[in-house]
Amino acid sequence: MPEIRAVRWDGEAIVLIDQTLLPSTEVTVVCDTVDSLVDAIVRLVVRGAPALGAVGGYGVAVAMLEGQREGWDGAELDQAIDRVRNARPTAVNLAWGVDRVRPFVSEGVESVVVEADRIAAEDEAANRELSRKGADWILANTTQRPLRILTHCNTGSLATTAWGTALGIVRELHERGEVEVVHADETRPLLQGSRLTSWELTHDGIPHVVQADGAAASTILRGLIDVAIIGADRIARNGDTANKIGSVGVALACADAGVPFVVAAPSSTVDLATESGDDIEIELRDGAEITAFGGVQVAPDTAAGYNPAFDVTPARMISAIVTEQGVVEPATQPSVESLVAQEAGA
Amino acid sequence: MPEIRAVRWDGEAIVLIDQTLLPSTEVTVVCDTVDSLVDAIVRLVVRGAPALGAVGGYGVAVAMLEGQREGWDGAELDQAIDRVRNARPTAVNLAWGVDRVRPFVSEGVESVVVEADRIAAEDEAANRELSRKGADWILANTTQRPLRILTHCNTGSLATTAWGTALGIVRELHERGEVEVVHADETRPLLQGSRLTSWELTHDGIPHVVQADGAAASTILRGLIDVAIIGADRIARNGDTANKIGSVGVALACADAGVPFVVAAPSSTVDLATESGDDIEIELRDGAEITAFGGVQVAPDTAAGYNPAFDVTPARMISAIVTEQGVVEPATQPSVESLVAQEAGA
Repeated sequence: MPEIRAVRWDGEAIVLIDQTLLPSTEVTVVCDTVDSLVDAIVRLVVRGAPALGAVGGYGVAVAMLEGQREGWDGAELDQAIDRVRNARPTAVNLAWGVDRVRPFVSEGVESVVVEADRIAAEDEAANRELSRKGADWILANTTQRPLRILTHCNTGSLATTAWGTALGIVRELHERGEVEVVHADETRPLLQGSRLTSWELTHDGIPHVVQADGAAASTILRGLIDVAIIGADRIARNGDTANKIGSVGVALACADAGVPFVVAAPSSTVDLATESGDDIEIELRDGAEITAFGGVQVAPDTAAGYNPAFDVTPARMISAIVTEQGVVEPATQPSVESLVAQEAGA
Repeated sequence: MPEIRAVRWDGEAIVLIDQTLLPSTEVTVVCDTVDSLVDAIVRLVVRGAPALGAVGGYGVAVAMLEGQREGWDGAELDQAIDRVRNARPTAVNLAWGVDRVRPFVSEGVESVVVEADRIAAEDEAANRELSRKGADWILANTTQRPLRILTHCNTGSLATTAWGTALGIVRELHERGEVEVVHADETRPLLQGSRLTSWELTHDGIPHVVQADGAAASTILRGLIDVAIIGADRIARNGDTANKIGSVGVALACADAGVPFVVAAPSSTVDLATESGDDIEIELRDGAEITAFGGVQVAPDTAAGYNPAFDVTPARMISAIVTEQGVVEPATQPSVESLVAQEAGA
């Protein structure tokens, strides 16, 4: 089976697997304009914090090529790049990817693409490394073998440039023969768990069940889960973590049941400029994602949907945060600074 | 607007509003055989603990009339009545309704129907009374005015014979002018919140939003909710409460945030024969309710759905349990016996 590649640069445009149509239909979307790219980001054709880092990098190249065709001046190009940068406010990686390649804009498109390629390559290497570190920590902090794992949303190859973060740890544990079953929360409203995580687990032959998000807490309280592993969209300096809506409910149940709750993300997700979760803006998405489903209205026509896309899990409920740089246990370590790559010589 | 009547006896059969088709289509289903009635119960054409009490009562009459037509002997009739009684294992009210009318079987169908009518009338009276008691307790134990209320699943007229339990308290608070907004959890997998609760709240003109179940915890932790009110399918002697899957997640968040978590049910839901939540059987429903939605497959074809219909909220997380008999605060009161109607003279 070919490896899953959610984000690819074809020399002139970004090629994305359309994740809104999985698992029933596998098609790609080619984005060669800022409009089409922002639309793809907002519609979640591509999603997942680490994948959005690469999209941010390549997105600058898309803007530059469109600007050349359309004859934009510097201010127009800056504005277009900012539109990519701000397409989803909670995901720090998107802005991070844009900012990382921006210094290369003056050197031309080729240099920008080289740097974006580097983001993608580093993401895969980081995912492999954080998966090893996360698996080691989990095996050292649990006794049940093989493990029964709960995860929320999708944090696999589709959410990253390759391999995955929380789902990368699951893959690593599976390769070590330590996984009995994965409980994948379906993750309403857009069902990334049932549509994407289950598709990836099926692809890899990892035993799993899909469950309603509302089943997570009782599954944990009833002793059916040995560890919960989730990804992150932004990790604040104090360890507070923004992730897909429903994550903090998993954390609350784990805290009550004494089950380890592990956050996995590349160090690019750690945002030391954000002091705590109170400073994280929560994206409020279209209420129609709640009141309709697959084009079918499920609530009365006049009903309003309330649709925060993310929630914040306080550091006190997190057993461990894992990046490629290491592991922090927030209960005893008040800062996540050690999870961020240190400058050489620093 | 005519009052909503989910369960009605037409002299020969039970007439049910088909709740699987709401809110888009309003049709009734006529059940004049045990097969059709059990099918309606299992498919959730009718659901909600108190409504199932009346269904149990009238269901015995359905079995008797079918037995007369089909020439059943006593053993066959008993078996048919047991099929109604056991159609849904977690809901104590269904068995309770059957058991309450069973002594009248020897007196004939008319006596059974009179007793079933009494169940329905008592349920409505109980709902009105528990709603007053619940509203009083909530107003005495909260300070924010008007109130922002979270509820889960459907506990209104559709779930009862009339008025509602948890939603009855919401109606009572609304009539007193004390409701700012209701956050209705959509309640996957069958969306009783978006389909039924939102339909009832719209019917009554009560301001509300519908949200994903995964949004409940963060909505509470972010200070947007002043009280959570849920129903119950079974309340054990120690106060542990079985209710729709997702309820315990709401309770965990309320406990963490210091927000009152109130359980509302008629006293028929209190099962003194069940010592604690550990003794409550949790109905495991068809996994296809998770992996498909409205006939559309949302997970890979081979994916298995894990679908517990209920969870158990431990008494320690419950601020108050309200029945028509009174209010118990489980944190300081180890038994719910006072919530059950005392025999006259006892």
